[in-house]
Amino acid sequence: MKAWQRQGVGLENLKLVDLPTPEPGPKQLLVRVKAVSLNFRDKAIVDGVYLPHLMTQPFVPVSDASGEVIKVGSEVKKFKKGDRVTSHMFTKWLDGTPNKDDGAHALGGPKNGGLAEYMLLDEDATVMTPATLTDEEASTLPIAAFTVWFSLVEYGKIKAGDTVLVQGTGGVSVYAVQIASALGAKVIATSSSNEKLERVKALGAKEVINYAETPDWEKEVLKITEGKGVNHILEVVGGQSINRSIEALALQGHIYIIGFLESMMAEVNVFSLLAKQAHIQGINVGHRRAFEDMIRAFDELDIRPVIDTVYSFDEALDAYKHLYKGAFGKIVIKVSE
Amino acid sequence: MKAWQRQGVGLENLKLVDLPTPEPGPKQLLVRVKAVSLNFRDKAIVDGVYLPHLMTQPFVPVSDASGEVIKVGSEVKKFKKGDRVTSHMFTKWLDGTPNKDDGAHALGGPKNGGLAEYMLLDEDATVMTPATLTDEEASTLPIAAFTVWFSLVEYGKIKAGDTVLVQGTGGVSVYAVQIASALGAKVIATSSSNEKLERVKALGAKEVINYAETPDWEKEVLKITEGKGVNHILEVVGGQSINRSIEALALQGHIYIIGFLESMMAEVNVFSLLAKQAHIQGINVGHRRAFEDMIRAFDELDIRPVIDTVYSFDEALDAYKHLYKGAFGKIVIKVSE
Amino acid sequence: MKAWQRQGVGLENLKLVDLPTPEPGPKQLLVRVKAVSLNFRDKAIVDGVYLPHLMTQPFVPVSDASGEVIKVGSEVKKFKKGDRVTSHMFTKWLDGTPNKDDGAHALGGPKNGGLAEYMLLDEDATVMTPATLTDEEASTLPIAAFTVWFSLVEYGKIKAGDTVLVQGTGGVSVYAVQIASALGAKVIATSSSNEKLERVKALGAKEVINYAETPDWEKEVLKITEGKGVNHILEVVGGQSINRSIEALALQGHIYIIGFLESMMAEVNVFSLLAKQAHIQGINVGHRRAFEDMIRAFDELDIRPVIDTVYSFDEALDAYKHLYKGAFGKIVIKVSE
Amino acid sequence: MKAWQRQGVGLENLKLVDLPTPEPGPKQLLVRVKAVSLNFRDKAIVDGVYLPHLMTQPFVPVSDASGEVIKVGSEVKKFKKGDRVTSHMFTKWLDGTPNKDDGAHALGGPKNGGLAEYMLLDEDATVMTPATLTDEEASTLPIAAFTVWFSLVEYGKIKAGDTVLVQGTGGVSVYAVQIASALGAKVIATSSSNEKLERVKALGAKEVINYAETPDWEKEVLKITEGKGVNHILEVVGGQSINRSIEALALQGHIYIIGFLESMMAEVNVFSLLAKQAHIQGINVGHRRAFEDMIRAFDELDIRPVIDTVYSFDEALDAYKHLYKGAFGKIVIKVSE
Repeated sequence: MKAWQRQGVGLENLKLVDLPTPEPGPKQLLVRVKAVSLNFRDKAIVDGVYLPHLMTQPFVPVSDASGEVIKVGSEVKKFKKGDRVTSHMFTKWLDGTPNKDDGAHALGGPKNGGLAEYMLLDEDATVMTPATLTDEEASTLPIAAFTVWFSLVEYGKIKAGDTVLVQGTGGVSVYAVQIASALGAKVIATSSSNEKLERVKALGAKEVINYAETPDWEKEVLKITEGKGVNHILEVVGGQSINRSIEALALQGHIYIIGFLESMMAEVNVFSLLAKQAHIQGINVGHRRAFEDMIRAFDELDIRPVIDTVYSFDEALDAYKHLYKGAFGKIVIKVSE
Repeated sequence: MKAWQRQGVGLENLKLVDLPTPEPGPKQLLVRVKAVSLNFRDKAIVDGVYLPHLMTQPFVPVSDASGEVIKVGSEVKKFKKGDRVTSHMFTKWLDGTPNKDDGAHALGGPKNGGLAEYMLLDEDATVMTPATLTDEEASTLPIAAFTVWFSLVEYGKIKAGDTVLVQGTGGVSVYAVQIASALGAKVIATSSSNEKLERVKALGAKEVINYAETPDWEKEVLKITEGKGVNHILEVVGGQSINRSIEALALQGHIYIIGFLESMMAEVNVFSLLAKQAHIQGINVGHRRAFEDMIRAFDELDIRPVIDTVYSFDEALDAYKHLYKGAFGKIVIKVSE
Repeated sequence: MKAWQRQGVGLENLKLVDLPTPEPGPKQLLVRVKAVSLNFRDKAIVDGVYLPHLMTQPFVPVSDASGEVIKVGSEVKKFKKGDRVTSHMFTKWLDGTPNKDDGAHALGGPKNGGLAEYMLLDEDATVMTPATLTDEEASTLPIAAFTVWFSLVEYGKIKAGDTVLVQGTGGVSVYAVQIASALGAKVIATSSSNEKLERVKALGAKEVINYAETPDWEKEVLKITEGKGVNHILEVVGGQSINRSIEALALQGHIYIIGFLESMMAEVNVFSLLAKQAHIQGINVGHRRAFEDMIRAFDELDIRPVIDTVYSFDEALDAYKHLYKGAFGKIVIKVSE
Repeated sequence: MKAWQRQGVGLENLKLVDLPTPEPGPKQLLVRVKAVSLNFRDKAIVDGVYLPHLMTQPFVPVSDASGEVIKVGSEVKKFKKGDRVTSHMFTKWLDGTPNKDDGAHALGGPKNGGLAEYMLLDEDATVMTPATLTDEEASTLPIAAFTVWFSLVEYGKIKAGDTVLVQGTGGVSVYAVQIASALGAKVIATSSSNEKLERVKALGAKEVINYAETPDWEKEVLKITEGKGVNHILEVVGGQSINRSIEALALQGHIYIIGFLESMMAEVNVFSLLAKQAHIQGINVGHRRAFEDMIRAFDELDIRPVIDTVYSFDEALDAYKHLYKGAFGKIVIKVSE
């Protein structure tokens, strides 16, 4: 089969190769990949900065994939040939608490991922693709949508009527606008582009703030919320931004630390943290049971994934380059028809 | 002021009288009542079967009221003259755990309720009327809508994609269809009338079952849910119905015991309860903090309260008689313009 | 190997036979059984009233066993030869929500249990035996102790200072006295025997009630708790007892339905349930993650399991007969040195 | 009455004065103060760095006090003359979520506190003194013990068998050792003094680390926990210490941010935070309902408060000076017999 393989650090070591088509073990599925989507993690893996001690052998990159089951192992019970399925990245984190070695069993590094004509999925680490989504759309769920869901629903127990602050318009952030709005929350979105703010308004955001025009955006958030602050903040920026987030937070509000676009270090004002009795939660995707919950929710909620650009399988490197530049919503690679 | 007064057991002891217009204490509001709505509790109070030891003195009945603030006490901070407000029944249950004597401080018995031109509300037991609702609509929130919210959101931590079974089409049940649907849950509704089932479908129910035509409705529920059962059941019937509910439940599903239309006693099959690891939760409305949460949610969700009939103040007894017969949604009494 | 085998309904169909010593699969452990303990479930399986549709083939009975690892499968990582281990009954329920087919993968029926010289345990369904307990003591943990733990800790989030009502002095109840006391709760215990009440006092109960002498024991509970009622009740009796339990409960208190010694049906007073805002929770043991939590707790708490009688392997039928009569604490069968 | 009064910033503006003995309002208690204890907050108030905008008028300092009810207001129901009572600092935070203006109603600044012969307590902001404690001991509960309880029990849902890391031997930390141990947790304590480590071992700590001798104490914590890390960390240090805490944490473990002895800013490694899926929780004491829970727990657990030194009323300034230097456990001022 044709496959892209990560053979070392840097985009120049992402190579299109021929690999033997794998055979499913007793509890595995052989899946013909239709589409994959890219995440910040995929970039960090190419750059060699994401758990490099685990990424020592060549592997097929990209964790998030949707496709069709071609063949099932002898003991598989939950899926059959022809099923439309989507991958679950942490293949051993199924429910409850995470495991110490989840990283060592993650798809798209060090386990083979979806940027190939075929991939193996463990029966336990696979979910049914929602009937309402195309394969390209569904391939954007496993990290980007699910990180938002796991933050707001599993950790934050979000309620309709809560207020949510979303920073920026990358893949996670656009989903945050859509999912939080669909759950009945009031979303306040920030961006440095008024054009993008118009687009997130169309996706459900009730209030928007251009942080280039309003650098003290936390004060604007307090004004919008009549001094109460917001209940949930998805923090993707890192660095000093977190202190503005704490100021913008309601008493006992939640900050989900999802990314670190600006800096790996965040200098936190501890006194503000105490005074707000803030919850800060580090997020690292989630478990399969909650992913299945979200799939069911997508069947009820009217959320249409926002795809910035679809690249062909041969254009995979262009897709990565787009990821480096930033996108509005998700970047998808179509692997096969 | 003109007021209806409950002077004893039975509708014949509900009397239209003249009472002195009350004066607000330092932390109270004087409210010109615009509308009240009736609940099963109001009937039980008239019938003398609801906490009769507390209902020994005459009082103005009906707990659920919306109106306009006419005057505020000297220490009131959260409301001002002209505010549109709605009552909170358990005036001492503000947050967290309930108090032993909440029943003794409930509106509409033994404390004066809203079936009068004016009423006093404690500042702490009052919420702002949602801007999106009329007074008549808002008067249906304090028990009927809030009981559903407190069950599903506070106790049940409902998630979008969950399944909810709703029995019948009374005030609580119609709200259950609307609220659960708006929260992204998949609602299965039951009724003995196909015409009513059409109406709940229009309000959001995805699946309906006519239990007169399908007495073993729990089997139909299992079929609809592919054998999984539902996550939440709002039980308003009592009697033997609860065992069908347990059969229809998913593992670790929730049954909220809200009413007892058929019988005060429920003969429960304990083995099924164990096997399902069911949660059964007795519901008795809820606290003010959660009521305020719901108000905020109504501002985001698109829920239009379903009012069966609006009666005039003079027709209050007819409104009660309608309540005895049953209604589709809520019965409202318009008290003033 | 020598093994007892359940070949049909009734104690007369529990037969001592010779079976081939099994070989562990890649993720299994071969365990030399040292001791097993009996539970109400083992009796119900012999009687043919527990999930009889699953118990159609002969199997080795008794789910709860402790022993020593003799051999490990090729892929086993967490255990090694010589480890002291204890069985986890629901071999597929590892964390989070239960599975529909957990009953089909339970030890001691339909899967082979521990009443044999050797048994196979799945690596995932095994816990380390606490260093502080003998094998005989540890064999009493998997159902009796763990049912109490899962009720009070996982479901009930018990806090030190809570009050707990424990009925009777069987295996679960004695553990309830010990565990709840060790967690800092105040235990009220009931029994019809003053001698047994003295013994549970020695095990930690602060207050005791002889329900033969005080049939309205719920009133005594209210008196002891200054009218507040208790926060947690472990209900093992069934039948009408549950309404007394509801009366004895604090507002928003928990009743864990664990057994049904008297009757499979419980006629519940729904109005009391509502007024108390009671939580009723059906209990069916629990998952491995929580079992491991409890094991760690036993290493910190000073709980010495109460064993009524230890029988030899050949006396297994006598042990069952003792179970039918009732015991104070647990009945153990010593399988090997 | 004789009272100390904070008349401005600095110890020199803490003055012994004569004030009129206050009269209780309808829902207040007049309490003859027996003892108060000092907390880091009291120092920060004297230093003028704690919410200075609220501390503009003279007031009696010190929030934590125990004493005897001398007189009750006309509407008081829960207390009577002669009751032994203890103060609750956030007089308006009674249950559930905190209020925006809790700081403005806190005892010991800006509301009059306990460093006077008499003080007024709101009925709702008072708890009964545990029968098992002296007044001097009880005066140490409201902030020091309760901060630990609110962190571990209310937020962290601590379970017996969990591991807890406690830094240092101040008032909060010594209580953390005692409370966590009494709740069945395994405590690891750190200090730079081997003599103090011996004392915390005697109070329940199972493992101790001298961080002066072992600066990379987080590695020692991982070794002690067999690589798992600890479930709960009470962080009182601030500054860079928090990154060591994150390294020492178990997956999904809790860090409670309680103090900032070294620095108001904490530079947090965001990647570690994500990888550990850490919960970080800002702590600011807690609400009355949980304080009452803790009082009940103290009646069951065998915890003897650790008082470093008891000063007389006249020596109040010396007590403050001791606080500035640091103490092992609590500093108490005896106000009257």
